[in-house]
Amino acid sequence: MINHPAFRVDPWCLRAISLDLAVLAQAESVFALANGHIGWRGNLDEGEPNGLPGCYLNGVYELRPLPYAEAGYGYPESGQTVINVTDGKLIRLLVNDEPFDIRYGQVRSHEQCLDFRGGVLNRTVEWVSPAGQAVRVSSTRLVSFAQRAVAAICYVVEPLDGPLRVVVQSELVANEQSSSSSGDPRVAAVLESPLLAEDHWADQTRVGLVHQTRRSGLRVAVAADHLVEGPTATEVRSESFPDVARVTVTATLEPGQRLRLIKFVAHGWSETRSLPAVRDQVDAALAQATAAGWEQLLAEQRSYLDDFWDRADVELDGDPEIQQAVRFSLFHVLQAGARAEVRAIAAKGLTGPGYDGHCFWDTEAYVLPMLTYIAPDTVADALRWRHTTLPMATARARQLGLRGAAFAWRTIHGEECSSYWPAGTAAFHINADIAAAVADYLDATDDDDFARSAGLELLTQTARLWCSLGHHDPMGGFRIDGVTGPDEYSAVADNNVYTNLMAQQNLSAAADMAVRYPERARELDVDDEEAARWRHSAGAMYIPYDEVLGVHPQSDGFTDHQVWDFDATSADQYPLLLHFPYFDLYRKQVVKQADLVLAMHRRGDAFSNEEKARNFAYYERLTVRDSSLSACTQSVIAAEIGHLGLAYDYLAEAALMDLDDLEHNTRDGLHIAALAGTWIALVAGLTGMRDQNGTVSFAPRLPDQLTRLAVKIFLRRRRVALEVTAETAIYTLLDGEPLPILHHGQPITASRDQPIVVPIPAAAPGTPTPTQPPGRRPAQRAQKVQTRTDNPHQNLPHAIKGDMDDANR
Amino acid sequence: MINHPAFRVDPWCLRAISLDLAVLAQAESVFALANGHIGWRGNLDEGEPNGLPGCYLNGVYELRPLPYAEAGYGYPESGQTVINVTDGKLIRLLVNDEPFDIRYGQVRSHEQCLDFRGGVLNRTVEWVSPAGQAVRVSSTRLVSFAQRAVAAICYVVEPLDGPLRVVVQSELVANEQSSSSSGDPRVAAVLESPLLAEDHWADQTRVGLVHQTRRSGLRVAVAADHLVEGPTATEVRSESFPDVARVTVTATLEPGQRLRLIKFVAHGWSETRSLPAVRDQVDAALAQATAAGWEQLLAEQRSYLDDFWDRADVELDGDPEIQQAVRFSLFHVLQAGARAEVRAIAAKGLTGPGYDGHCFWDTEAYVLPMLTYIAPDTVADALRWRHTTLPMATARARQLGLRGAAFAWRTIHGEECSSYWPAGTAAFHINADIAAAVADYLDATDDDDFARSAGLELLTQTARLWCSLGHHDPMGGFRIDGVTGPDEYSAVADNNVYTNLMAQQNLSAAADMAVRYPERARELDVDDEEAARWRHSAGAMYIPYDEVLGVHPQSDGFTDHQVWDFDATSADQYPLLLHFPYFDLYRKQVVKQADLVLAMHRRGDAFSNEEKARNFAYYERLTVRDSSLSACTQSVIAAEIGHLGLAYDYLAEAALMDLDDLEHNTRDGLHIAALAGTWIALVAGLTGMRDQNGTVSFAPRLPDQLTRLAVKIFLRRRRVALEVTAETAIYTLLDGEPLPILHHGQPITASRDQPIVVPIPAAAPGTPTPTQPPGRRPAQRAQKVQTRTDNPHQNLPHAIKGDMDDANR
Repeated sequence: MINHPAFRVDPWCLRAISLDLAVLAQAESVFALANGHIGWRGNLDEGEPNGLPGCYLNGVYELRPLPYAEAGYGYPESGQTVINVTDGKLIRLLVNDEPFDIRYGQVRSHEQCLDFRGGVLNRTVEWVSPAGQAVRVSSTRLVSFAQRAVAAICYVVEPLDGPLRVVVQSELVANEQSSSSSGDPRVAAVLESPLLAEDHWADQTRVGLVHQTRRSGLRVAVAADHLVEGPTATEVRSESFPDVARVTVTATLEPGQRLRLIKFVAHGWSETRSLPAVRDQVDAALAQATAAGWEQLLAEQRSYLDDFWDRADVELDGDPEIQQAVRFSLFHVLQAGARAEVRAIAAKGLTGPGYDGHCFWDTEAYVLPMLTYIAPDTVADALRWRHTTLPMATARARQLGLRGAAFAWRTIHGEECSSYWPAGTAAFHINADIAAAVADYLDATDDDDFARSAGLELLTQTARLWCSLGHHDPMGGFRIDGVTGPDEYSAVADNNVYTNLMAQQNLSAAADMAVRYPERARELDVDDEEAARWRHSAGAMYIPYDEVLGVHPQSDGFTDHQVWDFDATSADQYPLLLHFPYFDLYRKQVVKQADLVLAMHRRGDAFSNEEKARNFAYYERLTVRDSSLSACTQSVIAAEIGHLGLAYDYLAEAALMDLDDLEHNTRDGLHIAALAGTWIALVAGLTGMRDQNGTVSFAPRLPDQLTRLAVKIFLRRRRVALEVTAETAIYTLLDGEPLPILHHGQPITASRDQPIVVPIPAAAPGTPTPTQPPGRRPAQRAQKVQTRTDNPHQNLPHAIKGDMDDANR
Repeated sequence: MINHPAFRVDPWCLRAISLDLAVLAQAESVFALANGHIGWRGNLDEGEPNGLPGCYLNGVYELRPLPYAEAGYGYPESGQTVINVTDGKLIRLLVNDEPFDIRYGQVRSHEQCLDFRGGVLNRTVEWVSPAGQAVRVSSTRLVSFAQRAVAAICYVVEPLDGPLRVVVQSELVANEQSSSSSGDPRVAAVLESPLLAEDHWADQTRVGLVHQTRRSGLRVAVAADHLVEGPTATEVRSESFPDVARVTVTATLEPGQRLRLIKFVAHGWSETRSLPAVRDQVDAALAQATAAGWEQLLAEQRSYLDDFWDRADVELDGDPEIQQAVRFSLFHVLQAGARAEVRAIAAKGLTGPGYDGHCFWDTEAYVLPMLTYIAPDTVADALRWRHTTLPMATARARQLGLRGAAFAWRTIHGEECSSYWPAGTAAFHINADIAAAVADYLDATDDDDFARSAGLELLTQTARLWCSLGHHDPMGGFRIDGVTGPDEYSAVADNNVYTNLMAQQNLSAAADMAVRYPERARELDVDDEEAARWRHSAGAMYIPYDEVLGVHPQSDGFTDHQVWDFDATSADQYPLLLHFPYFDLYRKQVVKQADLVLAMHRRGDAFSNEEKARNFAYYERLTVRDSSLSACTQSVIAAEIGHLGLAYDYLAEAALMDLDDLEHNTRDGLHIAALAGTWIALVAGLTGMRDQNGTVSFAPRLPDQLTRLAVKIFLRRRRVALEVTAETAIYTLLDGEPLPILHHGQPITASRDQPIVVPIPAAAPGTPTPTQPPGRRPAQRAQKVQTRTDNPHQNLPHAIKGDMDDANR
């Protein structure tokens, strides 16, 4: 989409200089604002036209029955799906007698800009009504990082050519109508009118609505207050109904005059508190916001983000588009997790209803491995949310005949919502992913309080799961049969290498932590016998290897399967899952997303360099990247084994996943994990950062086109800055005790005395560049960058304006 | 259920001397009448009380949407489910002012008897109304084998103590109300009022109704005519409405007088013919039936069955219960298939709505292997039905990315109705089962016409399927990955031995038939290249073997899995599928039903005797028999390797599957394949009959308790009688050319000159009797027979009358 002529390259914002209804829904996703608690899609202020109207509150879901034509034991009967809660961002406008609607009349200009430093979405429109009145509407919208329950809009109307009578209706609307559903399983179930009205009020500039969800019984409140500045005769009145509350402002504007409306919106919800309590809660939040005022909300937002960028910014020279995309990624991942505060970080964050608003393994396997090193507080919160689901996870384990905890493959509240178990419940690796996130966070922070209150219990219950899920074969090997690994084009296989290696690490980490926190371990009934079983099972873990081919099969028997007929597969048959039966996908060698390759990233210590090179080449030929989670991991391993051009291509694919709408479903929300993967591709890929087995190591090396990469990382309670160019790496310890580091295998120590400048060693002679299935090679970034450099007039817009019509039509 | 005190042992009928509402639904199933076209459950004449009212027409189904919480490519969207069509068997009775209802008043006696030779269900009730009037009601019901569209009832009312005013209402009722559904996936979906009224009429003693199914659009007609014999003042009138048509007879009966009503019922349906055509069709059938009259219908029925028993009877001395059960089995399998005539033989026949009335592999793998040798005409018809589904099967193969035909795992009309593909579509062995049934039928009959019109095409399209489903590994082995074998407690595994061996036979048979019918082969585009590929793939078929354990793994990797924890599984946790997730079942060594053991029966030539013994012992420890299809196969192999006691136990389990309601779902209909399995256990088991690779062989040997077994078999266009005792076997060729036979490996020739009497050789020294999972050993038949012999007063009723109350309550 960013190839669309409307979009502009800018290092610190995402800007569209026109509006194209054909990509409206996608634009709503990329322009979404959120703080981890409240999410507002980038819908137009006036509500219509829209792609998908959306306001979300983290944790607010409705139940829906999960139907089965053939039921089975243990199938979940009820699913959870995110709902569009009461919309607080609507501001409708009447210009003389005409509704302001960009589908009618003439749009002279339309610009939207998501400001990564200001944390606001700006919009300016100049419009001529069908009757010929010209007006400028400017709005600035924020969802506050500082005040978690608060969002606000500054809305300004100005006449352009002559006097105007205007009516501004600022609304709260519940049960907004949505567009229809599709057959794509990745799209959310649409629920009609999920909100039951409980209370509504209107008092001068203040209005509010309280609803309860029909089946899940969650109470949802939204309230708004307004500051109106306009000519003397400006009038304000308000009214409320069960599903709508409205403040109406009428004014006549002479040229030079303007009407300015500040709308403060407070959202609140609860599954336990009473109607008066929730009503008071939003009222109090509103009072705090109005007391602060618009300018202070802006300032707080800026300050929060200044601090974030100071800790987390990534500078990348040589590819301005990717520089922009990296900051876009950092900004949106922050928006997804910043103030989630013991709620899930969903696969789409709070940017759209895709995947029913569920949280998957994406969080622990992609999002937290980034946030751990730049915003560790958010990681503790996310893992505390997982910890709140432990009762559901232990109950689920019991139901499945297992011990410990079996965390839900997809959920909002904690209960398993996956209705197709071969690609859901069977993907037990999520439990090891959670354990790894815990271990990584503790390595980075030494957060004893977290370890005692949540971390050790998560490690213990997942270790118990693995012990009961696996079994010893007659030769003493520990095997884990019948599970699904990350690659969803295989399922229910024995000894998935990724799963077994992650389980091994899980078991060891649990045993280590039990030694470190003996008292808490005793409370959790961990005794020496149990810890010894964990260590023994970890030590005996069976890892299949194909001696003939000299590669690791993804799971037992994988390399014996027929290779998918890629030559007979046309470009429009991807993603394969929409065009071929699971039956066929499961039984052949075709990989949806990095699986064995992910194992080589997360458990690099378990593979020799030669194995990594052979395995990578083998799986590259089979991997179609029908998942947005794949490219970043392929980038990491490509970089590690010296294929820097390929690493760069995959980095770009991860970075542009949503900006280019590569999966064709950005309309349903952003791919938060792929956005996090951009950072992973840069830091675990191009700088080669690993923190494994107690050792921090880097192996920075850049592709030719990138001339400089500067990152800041929070590591083992210290902040480290790393700046990489073609020749040197500069390590700077920003705070904390000296840190021993391996740089390309050579021990150095970063200390606060002065930056260490070390040379980048010459690359080893490369192996042949691995090939991908026909048509599945990633776009070659170097060529694109080259083309742009050769045509400097293309440097600003993301693409040449082609045969597309005026975007406003 | 046959242990219920109501039931009596009788070699030629099934008789219940009282009525127990607790087993009413089961009794309705075992007392069902059918001719393969029409099925009438053994509901009481007066309709209520009932367990499950049921009238079925083979091929009449309604469509229902198949819902998925997570959809996938190729999932069928619409299912077919059998419906209870217009009920033609209802005859209600009013005695003075009281409805005749055995739940009220007093039942003096109640007897039902299903006569295997007469082909009728007799019932006699003596009842005293709440007001004290005593009446005897006798009915005889038949579903005609001779006149396929016709059923009839002779209904007699007699006063017992004093004069009675009676009203008899003979009805046709559409959209009968049914009881509620259950959570058991084996139960049919209940559809409310599936029939839309089209026409109805009443004219003196003749009434009729025509309906159309709501979604599938099938036109269903039923008409009835009546002969009334009663005292002079007897009055008859009739009336009709959209969903009910009624002939009402009123009479006053003095002691010694009786009212006799003969009800002739004609059923018809069509998916294409017009309303007048279908109405005329049932009218014509009715005219034929009334022209014949009741006595002739009885005589035709008797004649048809005399012929059947002459060809098919099995005599078994030493166990009267099993003798009865064997004839019960033969009778019901005949009822399921006799006049199906290019319609499916469903898993439940036409005895109940279980499994939605679907036809599975049961037909070709269990039912046809019996019918081929006693009623081969029905086999040609059943396979011609499969052939009619070829367009759906080839379309399904295309949808799955395969060549040839992929027949539906479960269907009525031919489209795939399985909504859980790992236990449905993935069970590709059904295609080889169909091919095997074709080959066996052709071996038995040399039916050239069938071969040309259907057989060769079935073999060709299934062979094509296997060629595209399998692939060659680098060593040249032909592998079939990711399929589900007969055992539904494993799924989606590589190289299932049963599947691979049956596919191998399928490929070879197709190649052989192409040589035999070259012209037809050319029409089917089979050239020498293709036939050569079939032979090569068959020759290269990979069959996994576990060298360490010395057994065949059911599929690749099976023997590496953890053995199910049988000790921790309680008796009430069977069937396991209702108490454990598929996830857990699939990944462990636990077998629902004979799979590798079935391979040893159907492809005995592929295993040495030592392998058979070792494999059988290995899988006996793992097989829980949660499927009714298992016991008969275990009986066959137990007999082959010399465990005659165990073979006898399994034979008894198959024989008593429904009579004892061993699966607790006889209420939903009989297990037709298990009933056929009774014959298989006797003939393939105790007489050891095989017809493989052109050789007919027997190895008869009886368990001690059975003193004599006599069977008649249609083999290679000849009829052979075999009588086995402890010491000798007598082979008699009843017609046809001399037949070379192997008797316990010794060549003999049966000719029409005289019976050959050959000794049964002494049994080889036995291996230890295999053991089953705890609690899953079959009931020990020898002990039961012994007990009964020790207590001769138990010889008549099936069990001692225990603490059960009067069955009429």
